Parts: sequence; structure tokens; C-alpha cells
Amino acid sequence: MAINRQYLLNAHPKGQLLESDLRYHEDSVPECADGDVLLKAQTIALEPAMRGWMENRADYMAPMAVGDIMRAMAVAEVVESRHADYVAGERVAGLFGMQDYSLLSASSVPPQKVDAAMDNATFLGVMGVTGLTAWCGMHAIGKPQAGQTVLVSGAAGATGSVVGQLAKLAGCTVIGTAGSDEKCHWLVNDLGFDGAINYKQQSIAEAVRETCPDGLDIYWDNVGGELLDVALDNLAKGARVVLCGAISRYNASGPLPGPKNYFNLVFRNAEMKGFVVFDYVHLFEQASAELQALLVDGSLKHHEDIQQGFKQLPDALLRLFRGDNTGKQLVQVE
Amino acid sequence: MAINRQYLLNAHPKGQLLESDLRYHEDSVPECADGDVLLKAQTIALEPAMRGWMENRADYMAPMAVGDIMRAMAVAEVVESRHADYVAGERVAGLFGMQDYSLLSASSVPPQKVDAAMDNATFLGVMGVTGLTAWCGMHAIGKPQAGQTVLVSGAAGATGSVVGQLAKLAGCTVIGTAGSDEKCHWLVNDLGFDGAINYKQQSIAEAVRETCPDGLDIYWDNVGGELLDVALDNLAKGARVVLCGAISRYNASGPLPGPKNYFNLVFRNAEMKGFVVFDYVHLFEQASAELQALLVDGSLKHHEDIQQGFKQLPDALLRLFRGDNTGKQLVQVE
Repeated sequence: MAINRQYLLNAHPKGQLLESDLRYHEDSVPECADGDVLLKAQTIALEPAMRGWMENRADYMAPMAVGDIMRAMAVAEVVESRHADYVAGERVAGLFGMQDYSLLSASSVPPQKVDAAMDNATFLGVMGVTGLTAWCGMHAIGKPQAGQTVLVSGAAGATGSVVGQLAKLAGCTVIGTAGSDEKCHWLVNDLGFDGAINYKQQSIAEAVRETCPDGLDIYWDNVGGELLDVALDNLAKGARVVLCGAISRYNASGPLPGPKNYFNLVFRNAEMKGFVVFDYVHLFEQASAELQALLVDGSLKHHEDIQQGFKQLPDALLRLFRGDNTGKQLVQVE
Repeated sequence: MAINRQYLLNAHPKGQLLESDLRYHEDSVPECADGDVLLKAQTIALEPAMRGWMENRADYMAPMAVGDIMRAMAVAEVVESRHADYVAGERVAGLFGMQDYSLLSASSVPPQKVDAAMDNATFLGVMGVTGLTAWCGMHAIGKPQAGQTVLVSGAAGATGSVVGQLAKLAGCTVIGTAGSDEKCHWLVNDLGFDGAINYKQQSIAEAVRETCPDGLDIYWDNVGGELLDVALDNLAKGARVVLCGAISRYNASGPLPGPKNYFNLVFRNAEMKGFVVFDYVHLFEQASAELQALLVDGSLKHHEDIQQGFKQLPDALLRLFRGDNTGKQLVQVE
């Protein structure tokens, strides 16, 4: 008899995220009642935001309880359908969690059908939440214009790598920060960034002043901490700071200082705006169409970091916080 | 022979602003050469921003050097004109500094003629930089809409008192913070605020939660520090934080923590935008016309805190940081 492998939230993380904050569990495969659709996960996505979901606090999503199936985006195959809108063999994407089997009725996000011509990795990466986040944040907040200077932190990550390319396509000068020379080479040589800063090897403050002498028109923040401070010190007049993430803060155990020089926003007539992608659902159709067109004509490159095997899920999540991933972090379940 | 009383910058302030950071000086009255206009100050305005001007750093204005005449807005009378556009007896406003006499050619801001029907206090307050700051910040950033909730810090100050009234006129629920019960009474009973919080007597965090149960659509920040933290904890979805000032920070001697919960901007799809009024010169004509109309029909109330005598200038500046002023702080020179 088939089992349903799962990872459950074992403990709300305190400070550093640990593998032991997740717990492996085997359950029975849920029964597909009338109206239900039984799904089997193929590819599960890991995102830094999951660190926040694991905490016992409400922000933009309900907090998770210990014992809950770990929330995660996935592409799954319909293995049994007792619903007229779905047939076996189709793929759908949604918040199906870290488990093999789920029922569509249990999903907290309306599932999206995956086009037969698209592979799971592309769908979960550049065409998924990641690409939508990049497109919506740049469209609604960053508003890049030709000739402007854009700094992207976490640029070799799933979102950052799309953000930088969108800025390049808009005619901007784009500098990215990343944590290894390999990532920096990838940004410049493969993705066409104008420059890249290895924040582990260089003084960020000096490198930003050197590479962006006229200041930043847009700073896309995936990181927080010192990088945000440096960016705020280097804003051009009228700059936009797009707050998308703060991965440097997620594993902190206590309160962290905020951006000490936030008041530069006043002197620079500058704006700092945060968002989560679900604030821009009304833009998803336009975003998807434009991203797909860029993919098709080859002007948007992407890379996914795919680990093999269900049991890799906890470590794959930690990879994000160690900065091991280049591009979208995924786990191929089978 | 007439003397020109002046206050010079005696030292760049370190930490707490001191009267001794200014130095009294007597100079000769400048000679009015061909093309010049000789002015005699009548009313000099004090603003929290002057604390920043006194520091040895460039922000939106050139830093002042020790020995410079203290920069200040004033209304002055033309006492001698050798320029076709000005006649003796007219009043003009500009950055004439803390001194009796100045030459128009020495002004760093193009002088503005003061309408004969308007008194100096109104011109320097609600119709001056103060009112323009309130109007432009609300028009361009705050964008108040009927039914929204607005929190104004430093609400009994020159800018805050106008901000709150503009928000009321837009149909918002308006709560102000101030440092005394007298100021709070003034806000509610005279200016029509819906509520006021005495931050010296009440827990700000509790009081904001109680008075603004649906969260803040707009937070106008004149203060920074704990108030900004509390506001960021109470943002409604889509909120705008208008960064105008940070008086709680200006007298600090070292680096201060930034808003530790700035990341709530992400969860609330909220924006924090700074400005100085000179970023919105293109709105001044519209702003002045609307403010004047509101003054004339009695819907915009104002109060100036006028100290008498040139020698009161240093203490009048300190009054701002002690929170002694209600409304615009001015000194009547004669």
C-alpha cells in the first residue's frame, strides 16, 4: 500500500533554522472522494519566505502550527480525479505542501494548470511566484527607465536573477550582489549584468560607490541588513527601494536593528515600498504573458537548482540560507 | 551708526543642541550698491531642520561652516532699494539668516514678496514653508481619502497642525500625538482632530492600537524613534508613511537605530517616502492658492508661537527641541 511521505513542522524555528525544525512523517494516502482531485507531487519549491511561515506569528499568511504539513509550492500530477475540471495526467501548481499526495480540496491556493509544453522547473521558477514577484515589483514599484542605475541584492537567487534581467531589458545599468565568484561570473557572463559584487570578498560600501558613482535609482532588496544600509547611503534623487525580502534577518534570534540611515529617504525624495506578490494578483495575467514572451524569444535566461529526492527537502531549504543555490531552489520528489 | 546684530554658527552641534552653538556678533550694516536691495528683518522663523543645517554634512543643503551667519527663513522689510523691482516699505521673505540687515543679492533663495494684506506670522507659518510642506507631502505622498485613518506625530507643531487639518478636510479620521495635555486639547478642541495622544503620559503603542483599531492608512512622521516603530506596527494594507522629520533623532550624539520593524512595509504592501519641500516647487503655486482659500473661508486654523526680541533667537530654536512651541515658532526681531 502506498504511503504519503510528509515533512511536518516540528518546532517554530528560533534563530538559526535547523533541519530538526522539520520532522519526517509517513501518513496514509488521502482518499479521493466525490468532487476531489488526488495529486502526487513531482517538484517542490523552496523559498526564503518559508522561514517566516514557520514562525508562530501572523503576517501576510496564517502562522503554521507545530504538526502542520510544511507549507510549500509544488507542481503535482493529477493521479485520480473525481472532479469534472481535471483529468488524470494533468499537472497543477499550488501550495500543496511538503508531501507526496494531497487533495485539491485541501489546497489553500486555487490550483493553476501547468501547460503541457512547460517543464516543472520553469513553471515554479521564472514563470511561477519567483518571476511574478520580480515582474510585479519592478512594474509597480521599481519602474525602471532607460539609463537608470539598479542594484539588486541576492542577485543570483531566483527572484534577483529575473529582476536584474528585467532591468537590463528596460535599458538600465544593473549591478548585482552575490556570495561567490561563481555566482558573480554567472550574473555578468550569462545574464548580462553590468557588474557584480561578491559581498563576502569585497567591501560593499566601497564597491557600491565605485560601481554606481551616480547613485542608485532603484535598489531591489532581498537581503536587508548592511546591504540595505549601504544602498540607503547611495540613493539617487527620487530613488525607489523595493523591499522584497530580508534573508539576512530571517535567521536572527532576537530583534534586529532597522536601517539606521532610513532618513536619507528624506534627503533623496526617495521611496521604500514593500510588497508580497499576492498584493498584485491583478497584474499576474500581464506578467505571465510578458515573461513567457521573453522566455520564448530567449531574452530571459533562467537556471534552477534542482536537488533529487524527497528526503532532500529539509537540506534544500537550508541551502537558501547558506546561499548555496544559484537560481530557483527546487526538489525533484521522485 | 546702525549695527547689524547677527547670530553666527559657533560650533557644529554635537549631540544635544546648545545655545553656545550660536554666537552673538555685531557687524556693520552692508552697503546697498547699485542693483542691491537692503533688507531689515522683522520676523525670523525657527524650524527643526536648522539642527541639520548646523551640522558639518551635506544633505539637501550645503553644510554650514563655523562663523557663517546662522541660516534662517525670515520676513524682512525693504529699507533701501537700488533695484527697479523693489521699493522701500515692501516686505519679502527668504533665507536671510539670523541677522537684522541683509542684501537681497546675498540670499540663497529667490525672495518672495509678501502680500500687504498678510501678516508676517501667517506668511512664515501656514502660508510659508510649513504650510507648503504639509500640503505638498499630503498631496504627493499621503494622498488622504475619505474614511481613512491618519496619525500625525508632532501634531501640535507648525507642520503637523496643518497636516492634520488637511486630512480632516479630506474626510479622514485624524489622531495626533503631542507632548502635553494643553497641546492635545488644542488639537481636538480647536483644530478638530478626532483624538490626541500625549506621548509623555500614555503608552504610545496601546494608545495607537486603541484609537486606530483598523490600522493607519497614513502616518505622517515628524518625530522618528519609538513613534515610527509603533506606526510601522500598526499599518493598514497599502499604507503610506510620509517621512517629513525626525526631531527625536536630531539631538542624538551617535548613530541611532533605524525602524526595527521596517519589514512590516512588506507585509502591508506599504510605502515609506521621504521628501523635503523644495522637491515639490512645481506644486507651490497650487498649494499656496488652496491654502489661502482655506484660510480665507476659515476652515484652516493656525497658531504661531512668537517670542519677542532678537536675543531670543537661540532659545527659540531650543524651544523646538524641548517641545515648548505650539504651532510655528517665530521671533519678532524688533
